[in-house]
Amino acid sequence: MQMIYSAQEMNRTIQQLKEKGQTIGFVPTMGYLHEGHQSLIRHAKAMCDIVVLSIFVNPAQFGPNEDFETYPRDIKRDKIIAEKEGVNIVFNPNVDEMYPLGESMLVTVKDRVDVLCGSSRPGHFDGVATILVKLFNIVMPDKVFFGLKDAQQVAVVDSMIKNFHYPIQLVPCQTIREKDGLAKSSRNIRLSSDERKEAVHLYQGLKEGLLLVNKGERSAAHIKSQVTLYLETHLRLGKIDYVEVLGYPDLQSKELLNGRFIIACAVQYEHARLIDNIVANVNNKLEGEPYAANINEK
Amino acid sequence: MQMIYSAQEMNRTIQQLKEKGQTIGFVPTMGYLHEGHQSLIRHAKAMCDIVVLSIFVNPAQFGPNEDFETYPRDIKRDKIIAEKEGVNIVFNPNVDEMYPLGESMLVTVKDRVDVLCGSSRPGHFDGVATILVKLFNIVMPDKVFFGLKDAQQVAVVDSMIKNFHYPIQLVPCQTIREKDGLAKSSRNIRLSSDERKEAVHLYQGLKEGLLLVNKGERSAAHIKSQVTLYLETHLRLGKIDYVEVLGYPDLQSKELLNGRFIIACAVQYEHARLIDNIVANVNNKLEGEPYAANINEK
Repeated sequence: MQMIYSAQEMNRTIQQLKEKGQTIGFVPTMGYLHEGHQSLIRHAKAMCDIVVLSIFVNPAQFGPNEDFETYPRDIKRDKIIAEKEGVNIVFNPNVDEMYPLGESMLVTVKDRVDVLCGSSRPGHFDGVATILVKLFNIVMPDKVFFGLKDAQQVAVVDSMIKNFHYPIQLVPCQTIREKDGLAKSSRNIRLSSDERKEAVHLYQGLKEGLLLVNKGERSAAHIKSQVTLYLETHLRLGKIDYVEVLGYPDLQSKELLNGRFIIACAVQYEHARLIDNIVANVNNKLEGEPYAANINEK
Repeated sequence: MQMIYSAQEMNRTIQQLKEKGQTIGFVPTMGYLHEGHQSLIRHAKAMCDIVVLSIFVNPAQFGPNEDFETYPRDIKRDKIIAEKEGVNIVFNPNVDEMYPLGESMLVTVKDRVDVLCGSSRPGHFDGVATILVKLFNIVMPDKVFFGLKDAQQVAVVDSMIKNFHYPIQLVPCQTIREKDGLAKSSRNIRLSSDERKEAVHLYQGLKEGLLLVNKGERSAAHIKSQVTLYLETHLRLGKIDYVEVLGYPDLQSKELLNGRFIIACAVQYEHARLIDNIVANVNNKLEGEPYAANINEK
C-alpha cells in the first residue's frame, strides 16, 4: 500500500495507472475508519482495478461552531485497516496542500441543501462540493463510492457529477449498521452508555415509517408525523433535530410519495449529533434497493 | 473537422484520443471568431496533437443588463475559420446540454475579481469559472489557451487551476491587434466609424504608462494618473470606466511596482465596452514577455 501526501504526486501516479488501462475506484473519507468505510472499500475492490482512499478532514465543511478541531483522527489505525482491506493508495494531504490559495474559490450548492442536515449546517455542502472538485481532479476516478448513511451528501454528489459533467460513476452503498440497527459512524464513540442504548430508536423509528409505506400509506406528512411520534415517545436523552420524508435524490417535498423516497432523521445528543435514513421505493419494498449497490460481502 | 454537440460524445471522443496517447489543446470561446482566436488556435496547433475549439455563449457570465441575447453569433463563419486553421474538433453544445440542472451549482470566485472588469460585472467571473469547470471536465485538456486581452480572465483561470488542482497547463497568449494597435474583439464591430478612430487611444494610453515604467517610474498611482490624463485628453466619445495599475496575476494593488504588473483600462462607447491592457515586468522591458506564449506565426 502506497502513502501519498502530495497532490501532484497523486495525480502523476494516477495518470501512469490510467496509461496502463487500470480503472480507479475512489473512496473519499475524513478518516477514523469504521465498518461503513470498510464496506465502501470492499465495493470499490469488487468493481475497480485500483482503490484510492483519501483521508482528509476538510475544514471548509465544518461550520464555525462545529467540531473540526476535535473531529476524531487516528491515521495509524486507519492505515492498518486500509492495508488489511487491500487499499492500493492512501492519499493523505494536509490543509495547505488541498487549499494552496486558501478558500479563494468555492463551489456553491443551491439545490438539495436547504432541507435535512443542510438547513442547520449552512455552507456545509459548499465545503463538501469544493473538496470533491479538488479530489476528483487529482484522483480522476472512474467510480466514486459513498455511503447512503449520508444520503444528502450522496444527493449533492449526484447533482455535482451531473452539473459539472464529471465522467465519474457514483456508487451509493448501503448503510452499515451495528447488530441492533444503529448506523455506524465515527461520532458514535461520543455517546454515553445510556445514549448508545437509546440511539437504537432512530432506525426503529425510520422502519416504522417504511412499514407504513409498505402497508400502502403514501402521505408524506402522515408518515413524517408517525415517525416523529415514535421518536418523541422513545427518546429521553436525545433531542429531535428533524424528521423528513422527501423524494430522492432530488430531496423535493411531495404530498404523496411515488418512486424513490427518503425517510430521514437527525437527533442531537450531548456530544454527538446522529443522523440516519432509509432510502426506498414505493414500487419496491426492499429498503435501499435497487438504488444502493450491495455486493455480496463474504 | 468533427462537429460535436453532446457533452457525453465529446468526453468519449477525448477518452479515445487519450488512450492513443494524443495530447489535447483546448481553446474555449464564445464564437464569432477573430484573429485573436485564430492566434490561440495556432498556439494550440503548435503545442498539442489535437485541438478542440468550443463555441458556447455562456449565459451565466452575462449580467441581467448585459448583451447575452445580442452577443454576436455566426456559427457558419466560425466553422469555416476553424476548419481553415486546422481545428480537429469543434464542441458546440446548447445551454441545456451544459446546464442540465440549471444553475443549481456554481463556482464562486472570491479573489482577483473585485477589481478591473470584475467590480462592474458582479458574478461575471463566477459564470466564467463555472462553465470552465464543466468544459475542463468534458474536454480534459493537457493545455488550455487564453488571450491576454482578457487579462483578468487569465488571472482567474490561473487561480482556478491552482485552487481546484486541474492537471492542465494554462498558456496565456499575446493580445492580437489591428494595425493601429486596437485590440481585436468581437465587440469592435459595434463601434461607429468615429468611435473606431478614437479607440486607438486606449492602447496608446497604456503604452504611455509602459514608457514611464521603462524610464524608471515605479509608483503605481503616478502611472495610473498619467494614463488617465492621456485618456481624458484624447477620448471625446468614450467614457473611461477604469484605469488600473496592479500586480499580476494576483491583481493586488501595490504602492511601488515590482516583478510582473498590469496596466489596464476599460472604456464605454455607445454600443460597446472596450477593454485593453499591457502585462509586463519591471525587470524585463518587453511587453508581455516572458509571461505570454508567443510562437513564431508563419
